[in-house]
Parts: sequence; structure tokens; C-alpha cells
Amino acid sequence: MSVPESNLPLTRESVLEAHERIKPHIHLTPALTSRTLDNFASTPRCTDVNGISNARNVTDDVAARPTVRLVFKCENLQRGGAFKIRGATHAISRLTADQSSKGVITHSSGNHAQALAIAAAAAKIPCTVIMPSISTPSKIAATKSYGASIVFSGSTAPEREAAVRAEQARTGATLIPPYDHPFILLGQGTVALELIEQANAAGRPLDAIIAPCGGGGLLSGIATACKGTGIRVFGAEPRKDGANDCQRGLKAGKRVDTVRSLTIADGLRTPTGVITYGIIEEAVEGVFSVTEWEILMAVRLVVERMKVLVEPSAVVGLAVVLFVEEFRRLVQREAGEKGWNVGVVFSGGNTTLEALTGLFVREGEFMGEQEQLLRS
Amino acid sequence: MSVPESNLPLTRESVLEAHERIKPHIHLTPALTSRTLDNFASTPRCTDVNGISNARNVTDDVAARPTVRLVFKCENLQRGGAFKIRGATHAISRLTADQSSKGVITHSSGNHAQALAIAAAAAKIPCTVIMPSISTPSKIAATKSYGASIVFSGSTAPEREAAVRAEQARTGATLIPPYDHPFILLGQGTVALELIEQANAAGRPLDAIIAPCGGGGLLSGIATACKGTGIRVFGAEPRKDGANDCQRGLKAGKRVDTVRSLTIADGLRTPTGVITYGIIEEAVEGVFSVTEWEILMAVRLVVERMKVLVEPSAVVGLAVVLFVEEFRRLVQREAGEKGWNVGVVFSGGNTTLEALTGLFVREGEFMGEQEQLLRS
Repeated sequence: MSVPESNLPLTRESVLEAHERIKPHIHLTPALTSRTLDNFASTPRCTDVNGISNARNVTDDVAARPTVRLVFKCENLQRGGAFKIRGATHAISRLTADQSSKGVITHSSGNHAQALAIAAAAAKIPCTVIMPSISTPSKIAATKSYGASIVFSGSTAPEREAAVRAEQARTGATLIPPYDHPFILLGQGTVALELIEQANAAGRPLDAIIAPCGGGGLLSGIATACKGTGIRVFGAEPRKDGANDCQRGLKAGKRVDTVRSLTIADGLRTPTGVITYGIIEEAVEGVFSVTEWEILMAVRLVVERMKVLVEPSAVVGLAVVLFVEEFRRLVQREAGEKGWNVGVVFSGGNTTLEALTGLFVREGEFMGEQEQLLRS
Repeated sequence: MSVPESNLPLTRESVLEAHERIKPHIHLTPALTSRTLDNFASTPRCTDVNGISNARNVTDDVAARPTVRLVFKCENLQRGGAFKIRGATHAISRLTADQSSKGVITHSSGNHAQALAIAAAAAKIPCTVIMPSISTPSKIAATKSYGASIVFSGSTAPEREAAVRAEQARTGATLIPPYDHPFILLGQGTVALELIEQANAAGRPLDAIIAPCGGGGLLSGIATACKGTGIRVFGAEPRKDGANDCQRGLKAGKRVDTVRSLTIADGLRTPTGVITYGIIEEAVEGVFSVTEWEILMAVRLVVERMKVLVEPSAVVGLAVVLFVEEFRRLVQREAGEKGWNVGVVFSGGNTTLEALTGLFVREGEFMGEQEQLLRS
């Protein structure tokens, strides 16, 4: 499967260059702050058994100066509902005239496919999305509505890859992979450039950024963008069924290359790529993981306190900041009384009210798992 | 019941002055844009019977240049979850030292009470909220969490007013009314100053602003802020059970002073005030009203396409832009091919996932009402 060749160096300068290319085509998404969440993030010990109910009873204590001050980068408000438009737009901007005329193709069925369809339509080039024939009608309709052609395939990876090859043989379309490619990760990294600037403007110059890690395109791009800035970069993953493959890989000194997890953070079920893992290993300060219940509580806090819609995958970084003692102790140790300004990337918001409600119906189940984890 | 005296002129200058006073205490909320909603707003005839399903099938057609270009001012992302913090903060900033020492009081149980509690806490003055003893525990807890004292009363207006008078006799606290006061409406009007500037920055200098109208504080404030700018101001109301009191009053040439409506836009069930109505009559170009189904469809579009949480009251302006033929014809007539840039104020986001889901369960009921209306 032919992917576009890149000889771009994986440097901050390349991210700045990518930003210039994509800026006219993306939203400058807002960076929000919330005193309620600052206070919660600054309150010690909220993951013990009694602490479970704290997530529901955060108060807006306006008196104290919080030691963890958060700046939320809302890529859930991005075009297409996720940061993915950045990498897709950048990749398309790098195609040769010949490649452009033959169009692009992908076999993702999630946010990357929609982003690629939008970016291709903006560039007026053809886009084909290979989708398993069992995809939900709403996902098929959404992808079609952005102007992409859809080709159905079986749902296993080999079946999808065969469908891509067949289509490429027919049309000569260029495969745009979802994360493990320099064009993609340099595009995703542009989110950090905006966040750094917006945090400065809000009087909260960043000490750290934390972002979700699935395939690692976003996290490795941010780490690349932050090189030489002194800003530390952290990753966040769901823990369920070993979906914390990046964290486990770093611990063992070897990338984990397969994951089978049914975490509710369904955008983060993929293992990190080869290129992205290499960058993360070198430039990311640490990767932490959270439970399903912690993810769900973070979704509720964001939706009901900050009033923005997020998909579960989007809030694993916030869940680390709120619930992972190891991260909290690290901040305390490194930041002291002065505290830290932490940029938190909300990666996407592609969900529905019905889907979120369906998760909250399962809240008791997740809380039971959580209590068992805490006791063990 | 004593309210603070004001000799501020009801002018744009007074709104500018209010803005300087409250700026350090409020969020500069983002102004968002959405091509999907621009396209939908620019597509003719979507309120006929066949058009009902259009709201579910909007496409992101990137080719056409829409004739109605929207800029959404997200006061749902404001501190306290609504624009109300603006008026409350402004009113408190105008109190004398003696008044401040004795504190403030209100008998609202909605967004105004929470806003007043937050503003009073920030100014370090006491705040008392009179609440019907039948209020929901979550509302009581939220108001308490912002640091207010709560005094319970009966739920009729006379009972609540008696409780205010008793409390004022005891403490000398100043009543801060929810909308019909110059301090309040001048504070609410500041939202327009930011929106005008943000729309300019986005390359969409405004031709018009549309905002919800309940008591009229927000709408009259915006109209005051826009005096002399050439920007036309429109109001939006729910129609159910005659909740469109302002629209009806303007038509009859006489303010309607009582409303009993169970509209889902529960923040807009109050009639306009005396002062606010006077300003609206003079300075607002027109007031339009929408059905329950139109409000619900607008909520769904905003939550699922724009990814921000809104309460039903917040989206009546958008519902007018999308569904009211009279408004759409007006834009066509006045704006011609060049089109209009319209600022749409989302007033608040104080709802829960559960509450919204509860409304969507009733979607069939609202659609039935809608079909009957269209046939009649």
C-alpha cells in the first residue's frame, strides 16, 4: 500500500511550517479554563474509596489559589469534531500534483476518515473510504455527507487492506494513514503551538501538556512541537484490557504492537505506531493510564461543568490529572508551592447524547470495577 | 423591597463602562462558527412538513458560500454557566460601601441566583437566596456550593416576596432583581461588545444580533450596546402557551405582564419587565417566536454538531434563524445576494445529560404538535 514519501525532519520547525499550511482550513479552537476543575485538580487524595463520590461534589471555591491550573484545548470544537483534520489537511497539502489528481484513500472508519473526507473536499480532490460493511448507518451517512466515496469491505484488518490495495490498483489513490506518518504527526502537533500561545494570552504560560495516546500521532506531534520549549509532555491512556500499550511498552523497553480492548475510550484502542512510539520514547516525560470509571467521571465533569461535549477518548488526560496519584505527586514534587500550568488536550467530541446516556446507565458497573481495583 | 438606585443613562457608553468593571471577573467566552449551521441557515424552506427531517440531515457542503453566516457567542461557557454573571457582577460593583457590608439578596432560583452567589463571593460580601422549599436538592446544593446562605419560603410570588422583606428587615440586604434594573441590563449588554469584536476578528462584521428574551435583561442590554452601531437587534421567544409575551405585547402595543407557560425553554417563562420592555419597544427591530419542536431540534444540532452543551432557552435565537420563514424572508429582502453576518447568543448551558435525554424521549410528542401547527 503506497503512502506518500516524506523527507521532513521531525522538528519543531516542521510543525511550525505545517501550521502555516493548514491554518486557513482549520478552526482556531478555543482554550477554556474552569475554576471548578482547577480546584478539583488541586485537591489531594481523591482516588481512595471515599473519594469516589468527590467527583460529584466539587465546589467552586473561589478563595484558594489552586496549585494545578488547567488550560483546556478544545479540539472537540474542531472542524469534523476532532483534531484529526490537522494531520489530514497537512498530508493533503504535501501531495504532488499527480498524487492529488488521483485522490486519497483510507481504511479508518472513525474520526480520521471524516477528517480526510473534509480535507479532500476542501482541496477538491477525490477521497475514498474503505468501511466494514457492518458500519453503523449514521457513520456511513456522515462520511458520505462530507463528499467521500465509500467502498465496503470485510471487517478484519487483512480484508480492509486487501480492499485498499484493490482500489489503489484501480485508481492510483494515495493511502493516507491515520497516525504513523510524518505528515500526519507534524500536522497533529500544531495543536500544541496554538495551546502554548493561548495559555500565554490567558496568563498561564504552560509548564506541561497532557494528551491522549492511541496510535500516538497526536502525542508524538505535540512532543515534537514542544522540543526546546522546556514544556514537558505527558501521555494518557485507558487501562482496560491492556489498552495502556504505550505505558506498558515504555516500562518493558519494547513497543507493544497488538491491543484488544473494549475500553469506552474507543478512539484509543489501537497500539502506537512505529514512528510515533520512537518519538514518544525519546521526547515524552511519562505516560499514565486511567480506569473506565475515571474516564466516565471526567466526561461528566466536562459536559456538565464546562458545558462542552466530549467523547470518552478525549478526556483521558484530564482523568490522569484528576485521579492518578503518581501524576499528582510528580506535580507536587516538581512544581512545589508555585504550582503548574497544565495544558490538557480534549481530542474530540464525536458522540451523541444517546451514546453518552448509554454509558451513564452503566455507571454502577464501572464503579464496581473501580472499587475492586482499589481494594486489590 | 429596596433595590439599588441608578442614575446611569441607558446608553452604549454605560455598557462600555460596565464592561470595564466586570471584565476581570468574567470569562471572555468564545465565539464559534459552524459551516454546517451556516449552510442550514442559508437553505430555503425548511419548516414545511417535509422539511422536518432536514434538521437531522444537514450536510457540510463546503462548496457554496452561505448567505447567512453565523457567529455564536457561547455564554453557556460563561462562569456559572450563563450570561447572568455579567449583570450580577455589575450590580454588585455599583453598591455603596454601606450596601456592600449588608450584603445582597434575591428570590430567583435559577441562573440569576447562582450568578449572584458567585459574584458576591468574588466581592467578599454576604449573599442570601430565597428558595421555595420544594426546590430540587441539586439546585439547593449548587447554590450553597457557591457560598450563598439559603432561606426557604413558599413557592408563590407573594410568599417569596414576603420572605425577602423579612430577611431585608433583619439584615438590611439589598435586593438585586434578576432583569428589570439598569445595573443588570447594562451588565448583560456587555455580551454584545465582545461579540461585535470577535465577529470582526473572524472576518464576519455583524449585520445583526439575535438573542433570547425572557425578562428582557439580555435583549434590552444588547439593544442598548448596539445603539449607533448600525447593527440590528432581534429577539427570540418560545411560543408555547403564549410564552411569546414580548412579541404579543409589541403587536398589541401594550406590554403583557403575566405568563403561565410550561415551555421547555424554562428560563424564558417570565414576562418582560417594565424597563426592559420599554427599551425593546424602542430599539429592537423585531421579536420572533418558535415552537417546542424547533427548540429541541436546535438543541440537538448545537450539541451534536457544535459539541457544546446548551439549555433549551439558549437556542431560541438559532431556532428563529433556522426555522422562522418570516425572519428568513426579512434577511433575503434586506441582505440580498451579499447576505448577512448574524451574531447568535447562546445564553446558558445549565442542564444535565439526564435532563436533555428526558426531552429527546418526548421528541415524538413535540413533532406531533409541530405537524398539527403546520396543517392548521
